[in-house]
Amino acid sequence: MTKSALQIARTNYVPKMPEGLKGNVKIAEGAATESVADQKEIKELFPNTYGLPIVTFKQAEGEIGASDPVNVGVILSGGQAPGGHNVIAGIFDGIKRIHKDSKLYGFILGPSGLIDHQYKELTSEIIDEYRNTGGFDIIGSGRTKLETKEQFDKGLIILKKLDIKALVIIGGDDSNTNACVLAEYYKSINAGVQVLGCPKTIDGDLKNDQIETSFGFDTACKVYSELIGNIQRDCNSARKYWHFIKVMGRSASHIALECALQTHPNVCIISEEVEQKGLSLDDIIEYIAGVIAKRAENGLNFGTVIIPEGLIEFIPAMKNLISELNDFLAHNQEEFDLVRRSGKREYIISKLSPENSEIYASLPETVARQLTLDRDPHGNVQVSLIETEKLLTEMVSKKLSDWAKEGKYKGKFASITHFFGYEGRCAAPSNYDADYCYSLGYTASMLVASGKTGYMSSVKNTTAPAAEWVAGGVPITMMLNLERRHGEMKPVIQKALVKLDGAPFLYYKEKREEWAIHTDYVYPGPIQYFGPTEVCDQPSKTLQLEQTGKITF
Amino acid sequence: MTKSALQIARTNYVPKMPEGLKGNVKIAEGAATESVADQKEIKELFPNTYGLPIVTFKQAEGEIGASDPVNVGVILSGGQAPGGHNVIAGIFDGIKRIHKDSKLYGFILGPSGLIDHQYKELTSEIIDEYRNTGGFDIIGSGRTKLETKEQFDKGLIILKKLDIKALVIIGGDDSNTNACVLAEYYKSINAGVQVLGCPKTIDGDLKNDQIETSFGFDTACKVYSELIGNIQRDCNSARKYWHFIKVMGRSASHIALECALQTHPNVCIISEEVEQKGLSLDDIIEYIAGVIAKRAENGLNFGTVIIPEGLIEFIPAMKNLISELNDFLAHNQEEFDLVRRSGKREYIISKLSPENSEIYASLPETVARQLTLDRDPHGNVQVSLIETEKLLTEMVSKKLSDWAKEGKYKGKFASITHFFGYEGRCAAPSNYDADYCYSLGYTASMLVASGKTGYMSSVKNTTAPAAEWVAGGVPITMMLNLERRHGEMKPVIQKALVKLDGAPFLYYKEKREEWAIHTDYVYPGPIQYFGPTEVCDQPSKTLQLEQTGKITF
Repeated sequence: MTKSALQIARTNYVPKMPEGLKGNVKIAEGAATESVADQKEIKELFPNTYGLPIVTFKQAEGEIGASDPVNVGVILSGGQAPGGHNVIAGIFDGIKRIHKDSKLYGFILGPSGLIDHQYKELTSEIIDEYRNTGGFDIIGSGRTKLETKEQFDKGLIILKKLDIKALVIIGGDDSNTNACVLAEYYKSINAGVQVLGCPKTIDGDLKNDQIETSFGFDTACKVYSELIGNIQRDCNSARKYWHFIKVMGRSASHIALECALQTHPNVCIISEEVEQKGLSLDDIIEYIAGVIAKRAENGLNFGTVIIPEGLIEFIPAMKNLISELNDFLAHNQEEFDLVRRSGKREYIISKLSPENSEIYASLPETVARQLTLDRDPHGNVQVSLIETEKLLTEMVSKKLSDWAKEGKYKGKFASITHFFGYEGRCAAPSNYDADYCYSLGYTASMLVASGKTGYMSSVKNTTAPAAEWVAGGVPITMMLNLERRHGEMKPVIQKALVKLDGAPFLYYKEKREEWAIHTDYVYPGPIQYFGPTEVCDQPSKTLQLEQTGKITF
Repeated sequence: MTKSALQIARTNYVPKMPEGLKGNVKIAEGAATESVADQKEIKELFPNTYGLPIVTFKQAEGEIGASDPVNVGVILSGGQAPGGHNVIAGIFDGIKRIHKDSKLYGFILGPSGLIDHQYKELTSEIIDEYRNTGGFDIIGSGRTKLETKEQFDKGLIILKKLDIKALVIIGGDDSNTNACVLAEYYKSINAGVQVLGCPKTIDGDLKNDQIETSFGFDTACKVYSELIGNIQRDCNSARKYWHFIKVMGRSASHIALECALQTHPNVCIISEEVEQKGLSLDDIIEYIAGVIAKRAENGLNFGTVIIPEGLIEFIPAMKNLISELNDFLAHNQEEFDLVRRSGKREYIISKLSPENSEIYASLPETVARQLTLDRDPHGNVQVSLIETEKLLTEMVSKKLSDWAKEGKYKGKFASITHFFGYEGRCAAPSNYDADYCYSLGYTASMLVASGKTGYMSSVKNTTAPAAEWVAGGVPITMMLNLERRHGEMKPVIQKALVKLDGAPFLYYKEKREEWAIHTDYVYPGPIQYFGPTEVCDQPSKTLQLEQTGKITF
């Protein structure tokens, strides 16, 4: 493979590490823990891994003691996130420090590699090729869920064959929940294999009192903010377009919020607020159109709107409409198929409840068509295919022309849409993610050495310089509660939504009116790897606000 | 305005300059020149500015001599391109070196600022705010064409009032042509105002034997290549999607080609080749589908396809279809309006010539609809609205499913589309563009001091280190030829298309089969400003190949 100059130069970057992991390491154990909710049920489900203490690693006196080699297996689970390769490099360096003959095995293409016994040994040559790079291509990833006893038993065969002492699963909330279930199972049968997790999601929705942030979030937000900044500079130069920019984040709006904190757009919609206030689609349209009209009064017929990918599913009225549509079409598919093309829309309008019928009638034709035609194999509407950014521009445009007729708006509205997702998922990690991921991996190897199972690797205090970061492990059971999934109560890690009383949202809320009317665009520019520390090493604004209550630019 | 850490750090960057511009400067004049074609006609049109020599600036002995202050006016014309602010900073520093009391005036929102007398003085405080930044927001840009005597005379009033000795117009081929017409006019009436041009286009289509490259091209291609690289890393990790990526470039495919040279995609379509070979839309679909099928045979159901924005207009058969459609609808609009919606497509098919009817019938419904419905105020099809990337994915998908039925293709095809344009037009300039633009501006001020008019600022030898760059001026008449525009023969600068016998295309052509079948993705990463020179200062691959015949990564 041909390598770019940056790739080559970046190979030599040595991730910064917490002091606690340098030299000899000792472990400090806290008190027994409880799960965040449903303590009784969780304890019953996890008799062997419940109530474990939080542990922290500290620098110890003396030389690193001799030890036996430890073989470790690693799995990448779910969507790509910047920094995955550094987690693996951290594990590798950690277990090599424990003993030079330790081996690291990577299971190929996600959890299915464990079940199907597809693996490769990750040698130092391979690891060195992938240090500080983006992507998950070192072993690939996959979305198979590790859930059944049969899968666990199949996996154990290969783990035993390779003499693997511990398995590290790098993934999101579901994958870490499953890591915990697997840890419990292996412990219950005395399999002799520890299972550990590492917190990864670009969306940033795997975080809680114990896990400050999931890796990849920082880099992806920086890439999207670079682009949003560039667009804002363009917007402010051309002074004639409104840019509607959708960013990743289906189940939470952390990315949209972080990008807003980095770039100061004129509008940013936060799904969690929409849901909590019970806003309708029309409320959102009115809000955006209102900002556009106000700016137009000042002669500013341009601006930016950031939209989280999952918005539609957070609008209560849209959820109702989609649910009725799914239901109706499931029972009336044949009749619907018989209606001729040009009459389908009217047909649907005549059949829905008055409330939903009105919303359906208000939708642009393309979206209305999509809601009835593009359905998944189960017959459900595919909400993720809806181009929310286009839906909003069309409806805002209509609203503005209605207002123009009423004399309430005198401006020009021209719009351009963007969607940023794949552009950032595999970017090379920022220094923050490179350091954080390497530390998470290295910490995981220390958890292996300490004989821990059912833990997630944790690195805290990351708004401080890396030397002051605190490495340790958090029992996964501590983060569990019961939630209904596919009709059954299941132990899961709570998804972290944007907290409407949290510092990041409150900061945005305080500023948004000013940003809406005036123009205070920030241009973050591309991620830098070699410059001054304030340019290269800044954590996300979300973390800054959460930990220090302040934002540094 | 809030500033990002990078913006603040980048303010202090001192652009690298040619040795020839440092210290005292002397001018070397070459022989009389001729226009590239139509010499007799061009000479008649430009009696006062025809045949001027190419000039070069060289370092001279001794101190910088004393001089009178020179006031200069500057205009940004047309679309934004990274580095415009540095051209202005270069002019500013240059005229201040000539005399500390020189003043720089910026005309607001493009050429119309000159005509309407909208301007502001650009003081050192303002200039310092904008050094090394992207965008054209320092004075704004506009698309008004400076063409008529009335405009010229109106402009002269304000130029005289502000005691402006020279006007610098920063723009593309048309704007520089108009700069030349204006220079000729002011000279012919002894107005005492010099007019100079600076070569700007992101598309890269303003270049020739005298102008190596237009500014902004380098930065924009690097931003797009960063994103394409990120997508390729994702693609190579997820191994399940084909990404179709459209990039800027309506009138030429330089950007697509440069991005391909930087990232090694599986397919890159070059419009100029399509036109020269007379390829049909179906030929292009067959080619792309062929690569997909071959990769599928090796189990690689993923890849990347780069498409230039202007592709459709380079396909001879599509041009014919669009021309017949424009013609037909102009004469049969009423009848067409009466056809009911669901019958419009069949109606059009029944009316076109057999050849065009067949092509029209092969188009996906959305595109077919767009071709008949979305027309501009003159009744013409709006080709630029066609989402070529989606058109191609739909047609490729259909082709592959036909092949699957015939047993010629056994693979899975899922696609994702992207379009990158606004994401790069206002990025902060790369070191290359920051240096190149600053040098262009500084050179312009030396042309002013030398009393030159009708010249374009030129900086050559830019694949060498900046100290060895050669600064000078090229008489614009030298680049002119006559072309038919709106039915009239006009003097214009030839647009530079991708040369099919040029080193950049030949390199791509030699490699493309290998890149198509194997995976040799390059991940350029984000533009770096502070690292090692091979990471921060590389010129475009296009320039490397054109000047040295080699590519350095």
